[in-house]
Amino acid sequence: MNTFGDSLRLTTFGESHGPAMGGVLDGIPSGLSIDHDLLHDWLQRRRTATSALVSSRVEPDEPEFLSGISPDGLTLGTPIAFIVRNSGQHSSDYEELRHLYRPCHADYTYDCRYGLRDWRGGGRASARETVSRVIAGAIASAVLVRQGISVKAGVIAIGTSGELPFVESMSQDGDFNFPDPLPEKMLREVEEARKACDSVGGVIGCVVTGLSAGIGNPVYGKLQARLAEAIFSINAVKGFDYGYGFQAASSRGSTVADSFLPSEEGGFPPKLHTATNFSGGLQGGISNGMPVYFRVAFKPTPSIASPLPTVDDAGKPVMLQAHGRHDPCVALRAPVIVEAMATLVIADLLISS
Amino acid sequence: MNTFGDSLRLTTFGESHGPAMGGVLDGIPSGLSIDHDLLHDWLQRRRTATSALVSSRVEPDEPEFLSGISPDGLTLGTPIAFIVRNSGQHSSDYEELRHLYRPCHADYTYDCRYGLRDWRGGGRASARETVSRVIAGAIASAVLVRQGISVKAGVIAIGTSGELPFVESMSQDGDFNFPDPLPEKMLREVEEARKACDSVGGVIGCVVTGLSAGIGNPVYGKLQARLAEAIFSINAVKGFDYGYGFQAASSRGSTVADSFLPSEEGGFPPKLHTATNFSGGLQGGISNGMPVYFRVAFKPTPSIASPLPTVDDAGKPVMLQAHGRHDPCVALRAPVIVEAMATLVIADLLISS
Amino acid sequence: MNTFGDSLRLTTFGESHGPAMGGVLDGIPSGLSIDHDLLHDWLQRRRTATSALVSSRVEPDEPEFLSGISPDGLTLGTPIAFIVRNSGQHSSDYEELRHLYRPCHADYTYDCRYGLRDWRGGGRASARETVSRVIAGAIASAVLVRQGISVKAGVIAIGTSGELPFVESMSQDGDFNFPDPLPEKMLREVEEARKACDSVGGVIGCVVTGLSAGIGNPVYGKLQARLAEAIFSINAVKGFDYGYGFQAASSRGSTVADSFLPSEEGGFPPKLHTATNFSGGLQGGISNGMPVYFRVAFKPTPSIASPLPTVDDAGKPVMLQAHGRHDPCVALRAPVIVEAMATLVIADLLISS
Amino acid sequence: MNTFGDSLRLTTFGESHGPAMGGVLDGIPSGLSIDHDLLHDWLQRRRTATSALVSSRVEPDEPEFLSGISPDGLTLGTPIAFIVRNSGQHSSDYEELRHLYRPCHADYTYDCRYGLRDWRGGGRASARETVSRVIAGAIASAVLVRQGISVKAGVIAIGTSGELPFVESMSQDGDFNFPDPLPEKMLREVEEARKACDSVGGVIGCVVTGLSAGIGNPVYGKLQARLAEAIFSINAVKGFDYGYGFQAASSRGSTVADSFLPSEEGGFPPKLHTATNFSGGLQGGISNGMPVYFRVAFKPTPSIASPLPTVDDAGKPVMLQAHGRHDPCVALRAPVIVEAMATLVIADLLISS
Repeated sequence: MNTFGDSLRLTTFGESHGPAMGGVLDGIPSGLSIDHDLLHDWLQRRRTATSALVSSRVEPDEPEFLSGISPDGLTLGTPIAFIVRNSGQHSSDYEELRHLYRPCHADYTYDCRYGLRDWRGGGRASARETVSRVIAGAIASAVLVRQGISVKAGVIAIGTSGELPFVESMSQDGDFNFPDPLPEKMLREVEEARKACDSVGGVIGCVVTGLSAGIGNPVYGKLQARLAEAIFSINAVKGFDYGYGFQAASSRGSTVADSFLPSEEGGFPPKLHTATNFSGGLQGGISNGMPVYFRVAFKPTPSIASPLPTVDDAGKPVMLQAHGRHDPCVALRAPVIVEAMATLVIADLLISS
Repeated sequence: MNTFGDSLRLTTFGESHGPAMGGVLDGIPSGLSIDHDLLHDWLQRRRTATSALVSSRVEPDEPEFLSGISPDGLTLGTPIAFIVRNSGQHSSDYEELRHLYRPCHADYTYDCRYGLRDWRGGGRASARETVSRVIAGAIASAVLVRQGISVKAGVIAIGTSGELPFVESMSQDGDFNFPDPLPEKMLREVEEARKACDSVGGVIGCVVTGLSAGIGNPVYGKLQARLAEAIFSINAVKGFDYGYGFQAASSRGSTVADSFLPSEEGGFPPKLHTATNFSGGLQGGISNGMPVYFRVAFKPTPSIASPLPTVDDAGKPVMLQAHGRHDPCVALRAPVIVEAMATLVIADLLISS
Repeated sequence: MNTFGDSLRLTTFGESHGPAMGGVLDGIPSGLSIDHDLLHDWLQRRRTATSALVSSRVEPDEPEFLSGISPDGLTLGTPIAFIVRNSGQHSSDYEELRHLYRPCHADYTYDCRYGLRDWRGGGRASARETVSRVIAGAIASAVLVRQGISVKAGVIAIGTSGELPFVESMSQDGDFNFPDPLPEKMLREVEEARKACDSVGGVIGCVVTGLSAGIGNPVYGKLQARLAEAIFSINAVKGFDYGYGFQAASSRGSTVADSFLPSEEGGFPPKLHTATNFSGGLQGGISNGMPVYFRVAFKPTPSIASPLPTVDDAGKPVMLQAHGRHDPCVALRAPVIVEAMATLVIADLLISS
Repeated sequence: MNTFGDSLRLTTFGESHGPAMGGVLDGIPSGLSIDHDLLHDWLQRRRTATSALVSSRVEPDEPEFLSGISPDGLTLGTPIAFIVRNSGQHSSDYEELRHLYRPCHADYTYDCRYGLRDWRGGGRASARETVSRVIAGAIASAVLVRQGISVKAGVIAIGTSGELPFVESMSQDGDFNFPDPLPEKMLREVEEARKACDSVGGVIGCVVTGLSAGIGNPVYGKLQARLAEAIFSINAVKGFDYGYGFQAASSRGSTVADSFLPSEEGGFPPKLHTATNFSGGLQGGISNGMPVYFRVAFKPTPSIASPLPTVDDAGKPVMLQAHGRHDPCVALRAPVIVEAMATLVIADLLISS
């Protein structure tokens, strides 16, 4: 339940206001190096997104590695455990939430599932759990890098801003420049939500390039199924599609057939390209060598600054008045988490193939 | 790779033109009965959809049960194996496909993955594999029925017909009448595609009612992640969202907060309802007692009657002229397959909880 | 529960008096051939052991392959399903066993576990299930053969015959000639048990040669742990040890230290041999390139021709009078089953490494 | 590879001279308390056995719990992570082992498997890893205690001391007094080995009482197979048998048939006892309500104080002169580790049933 993956397995642990968050990543091949710059960069992206726009729980988020690394800094092939201490928590801030069910949070469902919960800041259900995913993803990226595979995600829509023409603008090689900084109209959506003490949703696009043909598994282990499972394990995700996605439902077969381009190179099977890539790089659950791309819908965070009517754990009506700062748009921090999960899925497949 | 589920595991096998399709369903509790009427009904729905509209490969699809059933007709708690013989295959019909890669099919990717493939009618990648899912789902439905849980799916859009207001029309209890027969404008889309020797995509809606609160797992085992993985294992699926789905991305938090309704009933935790159900019945990956609902986008089938340019397995250009009848819209047969997969996911969770 | 293995997974099904026994073997690499002569030979060894000595339920045991094989006879990389029809069962013979608990059989424990059981001939707990293991093992042996690995098992003791000096007589390369036919004193033990309407236990030895160094996993996935799990899944097994086994417990460290022999060959790590092989070819759960060998203790079959007092499923005393022929020594048929299980374990590790 | 169990999963990490050992235990039900006295007692037993007899690497071994415990000290149902810091390691002590392969250690096989290893004190292969098993076992024992199940292990033989009549002396209820302190002749074996700068093996017995009938799984998930897998994952284990074990091989069926005693109690299935318990409480892989007992053979530790000839990682001969103190008999510390692993196996089965 708290483990993800087959040949590469990430087990995470930690409640947001317990002693530490952390994880154990088992299955990383021996002899690799951890790119600490990349790791630091990813942790920063997760924390700050666009600094002006997200809540700033200022924690160093410095991981401590406990195992799996040789004295020379190489992976040993044994499990890599890491922890990030929780600091600056003020559990007393949460005392008033102890018997209260926040709307659209996991308070009530955890009580139904377990009979108790750590009520401090969301406990295990807190988005703080993603720090472990980001660390694990950064470690696993070494498996992709040595095969020339790249995973890139970015915001393509906020609220009613309209969606960037992600699919249409991508090159045949999967190049797409996710805007940084975000376009004015997206920033305005966030700013307006914040001013209204409200929150707003968004859409993330993600592209995987450099994946050779033949990666993935048929039937129940389809690469798209593994990606979808990974992405829906992220808090606040409500939708996922790949390739032409939901647009495919309103299309004709003749217009979305990705024709193979003839090849002179020879070999069996030959290395092929398709003229278009409505398929999103996958056929029958297996990569065909074209870029794999997908979209992810994030809901607006349910924690908003306005007071909300709700009930307590006896079913009685109460008012919830959120304290502290809240992200007006959780999608802003999401790209690096989407990248981390996609990286783990692909590294898992590469290790087992 | 060919096994689905944890506590309830379905392993399927079979190539479309081999001796048989089949599966082994392990983990079904002992002492249950198989509802053979339901099973027959599901197999019919998979084969015929609306009879006028789908291709009719006329196979009896009569499953033979090989194990797991007592002389008195009760499940033994041991694996239930079943097979459906393939009949009427004319492999010679497929001889011309032997060295040819059909666009948007798994021919090329299987060759890349395995170095060879069963070229006859799609082999393992054929949609015929779903017969095993439907049989297994019908068996597993006994686990849901005894808890009052119902899973219902239906077509909500075909091509450019516009989408039925599935989410908006659903009652608080999850009642939604999937139209049967389909509305005129949907039928027209299919008919036009057929006449044009083309195919067309569609959207399926699915609702799970009667699920009590507390089912599912947090973090990586979220119920939505399990459902997404299950649904994306179905051929031709390009998108999945649940609750308010992709619409959530353009919404404000204040408008999609599902407020809890106060309850006088008592108990801990109390049985609660929410005033709205934008969440789709899940919080933190665990059911909250409200209906769970989701949408699935199906692409148009890549097998169309018009000739298509493609390449052979040496990379040389060839023309593909499909023979036989083809479904102009695979989404029409899909509802029972979606129901079967959702049933397997939920039965798995019920068995382990 | 009915699936064995990780990268190579065998799922078996079938009750001894149901329609068929069978299995699905998933994970066999593509492009291999099944050695049908070997398969036939293994099935014969399972059935007949030394023909004069074992009960002869005369069933053809001809497997039918349902999937996973190309029209050219090569493995496709997809699941290989096979069945063996049960024939000649006379369920009426077993009617008197319906409410009776045979001593040392699984009748009572199945009723405790499932609330019902297939009482006809042991149902799922029948040794007939091993036919699926033997078929799967014969298929999997193709994975070992191409790496020059051999697995050989044989009887090394029957009853009080005394044990053949298996460990002491084995060459450095793992050569050991399991006697065929068995020595006179072993045959005599079996014959005497039969005449006394009784049964007798035995010990099987097994040697794996040709395994290169570095196969296996540390900590919980130790090769010896995988072998032990595999062997204890065989009915009637009561003990397993490897290398110097139980004798190691009474030994001094200085006498069982397997010294490395110096090597001039170079390379890193160098290919090494040890002067002795008390370790049984494994250190820390991983092979060191020396032969792997182990012993397995089989109990005397609890089905004997003499009448036995027992109880029925209401707890009332009854006499059990076994009918039909019974094996006086199940260990005689066991070597091929031990080989099959060891082959599956090693093939699994080779496929994932 | 570093995870053990199905419904209750222990993932361990850590090298003996890295920053910390630790584990994540996932699947413990919510609402349980950790018995810190028992935990402390187990950690002491692991460290000291009989204090005069074992090497004393004096480490506090105080676990720090990082997650999974509520502010009130109850298990949350979320993963329980714990670490034990390594202290007092002097890696420089091991510098001379960097390029040397100790006989009967995992140095060479790790280099073969991974291409590198943490050479300091055995790294991941060190017996220090068992501290995590003991902590996890102590936590899991809460699951057994509430069902009245007890697991007890003790030394029953050292070297050539002769074996205590464990099986023969056990009462019908599984009572057996493991001697504490150990008998004089066992202590003498240890003392003599120490004086000779040598080591000596031993046998551990273990009894599980209070297990109700119907626990375990048939075929591949047999309780004895799960126990064997667990026990063989412990370093230095060479043999395992249960019930009458290897003695069964030389027995007649008529003498080891455990007759059911008639019962007047009624119910279906009735609660039954057997007159004898040669079976060791298991039939067909499932408990029958009688005590489950087994034996484990431990080899003499390969680390001895006498100089040993060996080779380096270039294959060149070198002399190994061990420093520091060494256990003359690792079996002395083993009972608590055997108890921990058996506890994890049984808790896993109880949680899933």
